[in-house]
This record gives sequence, C-alpha cells and structure tokens, in this order.
Amino acid sequence: MAQTYQAQIYVTLRPSVLDPAGTAVQSGLKHMGYENVDSVRIGKFVEMTLTADNEAAAKEQLDKVCDQLLANPVIENYRFELKEVAAV
Amino acid sequence: MAQTYQAQIYVTLRPSVLDPAGTAVQSGLKHMGYENVDSVRIGKFVEMTLTADNEAAAKEQLDKVCDQLLANPVIENYRFELKEVAAV
Repeated sequence: MAQTYQAQIYVTLRPSVLDPAGTAVQSGLKHMGYENVDSVRIGKFVEMTLTADNEAAAKEQLDKVCDQLLANPVIENYRFELKEVAAV
Repeated sequence: MAQTYQAQIYVTLRPSVLDPAGTAVQSGLKHMGYENVDSVRIGKFVEMTLTADNEAAAKEQLDKVCDQLLANPVIENYRFELKEVAAV
C-alpha cells in the first residue's frame, strides 16, 4: 500500500563556495542600519509531495532527485526531512 | 551582554500564488520517470548569523528584515527558527 510523504528539501551552497546573493543581502542590511548581521547564505527550500511504498523507497528516490535535478553536487549540499501524510 | 544567534529563515510562496518554477521541476521529474510526485513548491532558505541583546530583540529584527528585504509580503510567507550560538 502506497504512503504519501511530504518532503522538505534544503539545498545550500557548500561553505567553500562564494555566495554573491548572500553578500548582497548582507550589504543591503548594513545600508538599512542593521550592522549586527555577520553572515548571510541563501539557499533553496523545496516542498514536495510524493507517494512511495515505504520511507526507505521515498528517501532513495529523493536522493536521486536531489543529485540529478535539484542540487548541483559540485557546489551545493542538500538535506531533506520526510513526513508521512496519509495512507492512499 | 550580546548573544550570537543563528537564524534559519524559510520564505515560501503563498498557497494561492502560482509557482512556475515548481511546476517546471515537477514536469522535469515526470520526464525523468518519477510519476509519483504530486506537488512541488520552491522557496528560499536563508541562514543568517546576528548578534542581539536577547531573543526577543533578535526576533523583532528578523521580522523587520523579512518584511522589508527577504520576503515580498504580498505573495510570500516567511517563518524562522532562532538558535543561540554563543555569548560574545
């Protein structure tokens, strides 16, 4: 019986990779008077609903999806959380 | 004494707003053979380090920053989590 899962995927730049968008936000914050912000890194947040036989199958598929489509493994890391929603 | 906080900010499109990027990802997944993905929504994930006197002050500042710079309140929602890192 297939289960429905809600996945929350976080794609972030590797720490060694420069983040110009984050630097721009930080500089914008300084111009707005917020001098107390030290570092800003911007990533992607993907919410996905999928059906799978079990949690292991869902995780395996999400690993593939992240590697092949959502993240660039050369410069980005990803992690995800799975939540079971309901039985189908 | 100022505290250092690590903030994780999630900016997502309001449910009523169309997400063409998410639809494109979903259609890409179907082409790759993943027919079991129902909905994909793409948002932003911002990690920020800031110093503030206390958690309430940090939260107040983050609300302002999100409203003024990180999110467009007309079409986007945001939420954030705060984690105390270390005393300065």
